[in-house]
Amino acid sequence: MDFAFSDRAKEMHEKAAEFLRDCVYPAEKMFEEQVAQRPGEWDAPPIMEELKAEARKRGLWNLFLPHSEFGAGLSNLEYAPIAELSGRSPLIAPEAMNCAAPDTGNMEILAMFGTPEQQERWLKPLLDGEIRSCFSMTEPEVASSDATNIATRIERDGDSYVINGRKWWSSGAMNPRCKVSIVMGVSDPDGPKHRRHSMILVPLDTPGVTIVRPTTVFGYTDGPHGGHAEIGFDNVRVPAANLLGTENEGFALAQARLGPGRIHHCMRLIGMAERALELMCQRVLSRQTFGVAIAQHGVVQEWIAEARIRIEQARLLTLKTAWLMDTVGNKGAAMEISAIKVVAPEVARWVIDKAIQAHGAAGVSQDTPLANLYSHARTLQLADGPDEVHRRSVARRELARWR
Amino acid sequence: MDFAFSDRAKEMHEKAAEFLRDCVYPAEKMFEEQVAQRPGEWDAPPIMEELKAEARKRGLWNLFLPHSEFGAGLSNLEYAPIAELSGRSPLIAPEAMNCAAPDTGNMEILAMFGTPEQQERWLKPLLDGEIRSCFSMTEPEVASSDATNIATRIERDGDSYVINGRKWWSSGAMNPRCKVSIVMGVSDPDGPKHRRHSMILVPLDTPGVTIVRPTTVFGYTDGPHGGHAEIGFDNVRVPAANLLGTENEGFALAQARLGPGRIHHCMRLIGMAERALELMCQRVLSRQTFGVAIAQHGVVQEWIAEARIRIEQARLLTLKTAWLMDTVGNKGAAMEISAIKVVAPEVARWVIDKAIQAHGAAGVSQDTPLANLYSHARTLQLADGPDEVHRRSVARRELARWR
Amino acid sequence: MDFAFSDRAKEMHEKAAEFLRDCVYPAEKMFEEQVAQRPGEWDAPPIMEELKAEARKRGLWNLFLPHSEFGAGLSNLEYAPIAELSGRSPLIAPEAMNCAAPDTGNMEILAMFGTPEQQERWLKPLLDGEIRSCFSMTEPEVASSDATNIATRIERDGDSYVINGRKWWSSGAMNPRCKVSIVMGVSDPDGPKHRRHSMILVPLDTPGVTIVRPTTVFGYTDGPHGGHAEIGFDNVRVPAANLLGTENEGFALAQARLGPGRIHHCMRLIGMAERALELMCQRVLSRQTFGVAIAQHGVVQEWIAEARIRIEQARLLTLKTAWLMDTVGNKGAAMEISAIKVVAPEVARWVIDKAIQAHGAAGVSQDTPLANLYSHARTLQLADGPDEVHRRSVARRELARWR
Amino acid sequence: MDFAFSDRAKEMHEKAAEFLRDCVYPAEKMFEEQVAQRPGEWDAPPIMEELKAEARKRGLWNLFLPHSEFGAGLSNLEYAPIAELSGRSPLIAPEAMNCAAPDTGNMEILAMFGTPEQQERWLKPLLDGEIRSCFSMTEPEVASSDATNIATRIERDGDSYVINGRKWWSSGAMNPRCKVSIVMGVSDPDGPKHRRHSMILVPLDTPGVTIVRPTTVFGYTDGPHGGHAEIGFDNVRVPAANLLGTENEGFALAQARLGPGRIHHCMRLIGMAERALELMCQRVLSRQTFGVAIAQHGVVQEWIAEARIRIEQARLLTLKTAWLMDTVGNKGAAMEISAIKVVAPEVARWVIDKAIQAHGAAGVSQDTPLANLYSHARTLQLADGPDEVHRRSVARRELARWR
Repeated sequence: MDFAFSDRAKEMHEKAAEFLRDCVYPAEKMFEEQVAQRPGEWDAPPIMEELKAEARKRGLWNLFLPHSEFGAGLSNLEYAPIAELSGRSPLIAPEAMNCAAPDTGNMEILAMFGTPEQQERWLKPLLDGEIRSCFSMTEPEVASSDATNIATRIERDGDSYVINGRKWWSSGAMNPRCKVSIVMGVSDPDGPKHRRHSMILVPLDTPGVTIVRPTTVFGYTDGPHGGHAEIGFDNVRVPAANLLGTENEGFALAQARLGPGRIHHCMRLIGMAERALELMCQRVLSRQTFGVAIAQHGVVQEWIAEARIRIEQARLLTLKTAWLMDTVGNKGAAMEISAIKVVAPEVARWVIDKAIQAHGAAGVSQDTPLANLYSHARTLQLADGPDEVHRRSVARRELARWR
Repeated sequence: MDFAFSDRAKEMHEKAAEFLRDCVYPAEKMFEEQVAQRPGEWDAPPIMEELKAEARKRGLWNLFLPHSEFGAGLSNLEYAPIAELSGRSPLIAPEAMNCAAPDTGNMEILAMFGTPEQQERWLKPLLDGEIRSCFSMTEPEVASSDATNIATRIERDGDSYVINGRKWWSSGAMNPRCKVSIVMGVSDPDGPKHRRHSMILVPLDTPGVTIVRPTTVFGYTDGPHGGHAEIGFDNVRVPAANLLGTENEGFALAQARLGPGRIHHCMRLIGMAERALELMCQRVLSRQTFGVAIAQHGVVQEWIAEARIRIEQARLLTLKTAWLMDTVGNKGAAMEISAIKVVAPEVARWVIDKAIQAHGAAGVSQDTPLANLYSHARTLQLADGPDEVHRRSVARRELARWR
Repeated sequence: MDFAFSDRAKEMHEKAAEFLRDCVYPAEKMFEEQVAQRPGEWDAPPIMEELKAEARKRGLWNLFLPHSEFGAGLSNLEYAPIAELSGRSPLIAPEAMNCAAPDTGNMEILAMFGTPEQQERWLKPLLDGEIRSCFSMTEPEVASSDATNIATRIERDGDSYVINGRKWWSSGAMNPRCKVSIVMGVSDPDGPKHRRHSMILVPLDTPGVTIVRPTTVFGYTDGPHGGHAEIGFDNVRVPAANLLGTENEGFALAQARLGPGRIHHCMRLIGMAERALELMCQRVLSRQTFGVAIAQHGVVQEWIAEARIRIEQARLLTLKTAWLMDTVGNKGAAMEISAIKVVAPEVARWVIDKAIQAHGAAGVSQDTPLANLYSHARTLQLADGPDEVHRRSVARRELARWR
Repeated sequence: MDFAFSDRAKEMHEKAAEFLRDCVYPAEKMFEEQVAQRPGEWDAPPIMEELKAEARKRGLWNLFLPHSEFGAGLSNLEYAPIAELSGRSPLIAPEAMNCAAPDTGNMEILAMFGTPEQQERWLKPLLDGEIRSCFSMTEPEVASSDATNIATRIERDGDSYVINGRKWWSSGAMNPRCKVSIVMGVSDPDGPKHRRHSMILVPLDTPGVTIVRPTTVFGYTDGPHGGHAEIGFDNVRVPAANLLGTENEGFALAQARLGPGRIHHCMRLIGMAERALELMCQRVLSRQTFGVAIAQHGVVQEWIAEARIRIEQARLLTLKTAWLMDTVGNKGAAMEISAIKVVAPEVARWVIDKAIQAHGAAGVSQDTPLANLYSHARTLQLADGPDEVHRRSVARRELARWR
């Protein structure tokens, strides 16, 4: 057992830290200004392209793909601290390094299960940061926390599949550069419960695809990121070659996709929590109440200590989970992935909330990133499986040891 | 001791409940549509005027003013359940009944301390719902949770006062019908700590008053309500007759204003919590996961039970506080006011948060009022005195009994 | 609605407070000494008889029986603050006023459902404080939180009933003056789920009754109170006339018994919490760390404020529940009884725990009553229905409103 | 970074696990019986000597001393999982392996700072398990959480030191085999705050040493362990050669002693939490309520999941702290030691408490180890520095980064 980073991990981490320090933090203000002034509500601010070029130049590109010919060849454990850093500026850094959800998960599926043609057409431009993509799983009419509820139909018809249904929370889909969605739906309604669904690639310009409306998160549109779209699929016909993997194996693909996706979220959440703690410390050292710096108040010191203690623990469990994914595989790490998916949002949320309180009214406003970070962290308690489902899954594994 | 409402309270409560049922809830959808389509970002949607007329016709107008020639003559205890009801639709009902903050607090101060001229010019149109007003206390440059930090200057100069400083969170000020602000500032920098400040009426069209920008709350502009404004005061000159009450007694006025203002917030928060609990129950009864209605899951039942238990307690303490204000005065109820100011936002926030979780992604979106309610409840943990200051105040009173 | 006590309640409360102040608190030390020196491990210390005589003389006797020919005729609402006071010295005051569990519940059942003969033989000496009694419901072999699991048999055999089974947590049974148990068991195994059980009076000297052993609570035997006994019933034969109420209606009797029993526990728990808060305040004012009185530390002030805030709320909900029992009956107050049964132990436990922490090592030792109070409060989160069952019951009533 | 144990650590861990499985768990029942029947209240049950011999034979002896000529040469990181195992049976396993507090801390000080004579006289028999020792720091009259409050005097008088004062919570001192105490007291009242105290070896049979009384912990005497003693020191004269380390450097010694002592407690606490979780799982699988195994209830599953998640995190932070102590020294790990000292008792306490609830009344009784484990975990939130002091220390280090 050794808690020191490998030399390679340390070197990459330092490079990423430099990129954040030299390029990302200084760009945050301009990012906001460009967002405020951009012509279309869903356009990415131009500075993003500069940052992407810079990151790529520095070798900070597609780091998320573990052990892959397509990626940088980092292990999950090596990628974790870099993803954490990117979470410190979550609107900018992940996309700048081409490591932003949901594209990462989509690239991962395409790398693992895509045909050469699918990889050429979709994976290559995604890896090059030329297009973006979305993932259409959740549906407005059912409780998607039980994925067997998913009702969108994917029906074979000759050389095509025909898709009918309604999805929402297809994040990124409002972005004009978002070109394709991976859609999950029922292809064999009479099959066994976990072998009924398939995943299929649907170009967003296919007839029958309608962007119905954007949904908001608290009051945010998440516009620079491409928002969150409700999408109608009405008799949408795509070639059969667009099917991902094997028919009726959508559940297995979803599991393959969600494991890494979840841990990436967790890594970034820890970065968000660190950023919030940093902002809190700086704030309470700089303002006074009742004759002393706010940092002198015992209650505030308790927040800071608790924040540090919780972050350290969540980070270690996340790192151990990454190590397990590297050593025993994503499936072998399933309990730990569920565990961190519960812990990381909770910790981030708690720390951010205390940082908000320490900032007073500034904390809920646009003058700090805190309220926006909060909306991310809170949403991740229900996205990609709500806490309750993950806890249930942890409990079942624990109980199974004693049956 | 008797926990039954008086006949009069019951009758008024029933009238308010009818108004909500017949007029407010059915108007919520149109309110949203009008908000989406209104010409100016800060205009109130037209339906508000209809609702105001209707409420006034029904005798549900200015109910907040206790024992006053200007109000309906309800006691705090009688008003409490009506204010709670209004909190169930907080964007519409309080304003419709002319019981919305910050106007209520301003009307209260004007009723108690205003000169006949001030009352004629400002109180009357406020009571008639013809204009709105704001309150300028918090400042961006200092920790206003310690009110002695307030630094805006109010200086006597002949028959005028000259005001210099910067305020923010002047809620409602973006509304085109907002005509006046009550501004708190330092009038005697060398006076004793709690006798340095004064309050003064400043028409918003006075030269030197600049609306700098709106601030947001978790992404919301709170536009229909008039937003939250940062306001610059640069050599703003108003007649000396605009001073409220006695010079250098601004602290006493603030205390007089904040007691009722705080309990009104608490009453409405309990209504918000009830609304959230109701939405949660309806949702979990209507959707299924893992083969049963979500309402069947034990974890969700715990949320519902906890919500009911916490709401009941918070309501009772709020009602008792109202009763104390009626029987021993606002000062005699100071400990209890601090106590409910801690409890009510916490309870509302907790219940709303669980209701969000029970709704899944819909909970954070615009499809339910929950995320917006959350932003209100969260903000009230730091507005009008952060929790920490109120707890400190409760502790000091408790400890004083044993010294 | 009126939060003031009636004149009668005030007068009785004052009398009880005087009794505590003049007789009970001063006796606490001697009580402990007599406990340490008593000849038998389960004997009550002699000072109890003096205190009982004194309480009776002062008219503070059997106050718990509402609206009864046998009791003082206090309503639940009038009795509540007196029971709260008795909770401040829970090892002494309740028994001194003949208001201690489980005798109170047993007396209540006997008053309501006992035959004249049963009342003459058991109720009268209990009302006179001459004997004590126990209640045998919980069983070691099953999860008694679901009362339908209870398995002890009560079988009719001619003019007798024959009882077989094993009970535990028959509190008070080790006390040499404990003469009778009310035993619950299955009399009709094939009856409907809630009409299978009966209750029966079993004198503890009946052949076949064996006190198996005492159980401890944390490390306490609760010896002065009579401990907690595991009791074996092997072919125990009692006259059929010992049956309480109607055969197979044991569930209804248990419900009748448990409602008042639960609220009495809650009232006393609030008194325990008040005592703990008082001890905490006194302690932190008298000791110093890091150059200031502990009371000056912000973290400790938060505990004190939270304690005050939680106690106030729990008390109000308990009082409202008492009022409901008086006005709409125990059944009409079922939701509220479940609610306070969750709240009061939780609040007491939290406050006592913080008081322990404020006392340092003294808090867990015999030098303060705190650790012992903690063990009471903790146990009440699982006795008389665990929290989880009460929350489930509250949730079901809430959900029923929306079905 | 590598989360796998080294071969050596794995081997030792397996040996310790075998010892627990083959010898300790099977001895638990006999231990209890011997405790119940032993002649003196403070005697150790005879089975302890057998277990000690067995552990020594298996090479499981004095494993706690890191990198030392006296110990097994395990690093802190290698010892951690073994200490965790010992915490699963905390009344037996630590002492059986000669790794029980407070002897371990005393041996550590003697190994580091003892003179050859001191080592010969005290360290050797301690290492051989022939005698036990206690540590006298806390005092009844002051808040010892601020160690500068310690008031016992240690005054030089010729070739002797004379000790006057009163200590309590000298754990183990009631044990007849406890022969010596390390006493901390003021040797230079006018010195700088952290250079006023010294530590000195005081044989318990020295004239003037009086065992005043035992103190209890939640009703437990902790008798088999030697209890917790209040000790009077009245003109106790010991040779100057009994001084430990340098005069007036007692604070530095205390720090040296407390770091390892704290982490050992944390390791064992994690073992206690694991044991409690195991008991909880077994219990809820074996009993039914409302028609299903308790394990099927969602609320209980949440407890189990939370328990697993919290334990994993606490363990990782404890292991990392051990690794830091090994790599950068105890001082370099000070922040982390404070952090785990907060986390481990809190986690253990939470898990044990839920396990109690899952057991119902059995959980608070002597029929499971849970209530006793709870008393240990709770006490460790105030022993060796209360949580509040450790959080304060973590906060100060965090804030120092931003000043």
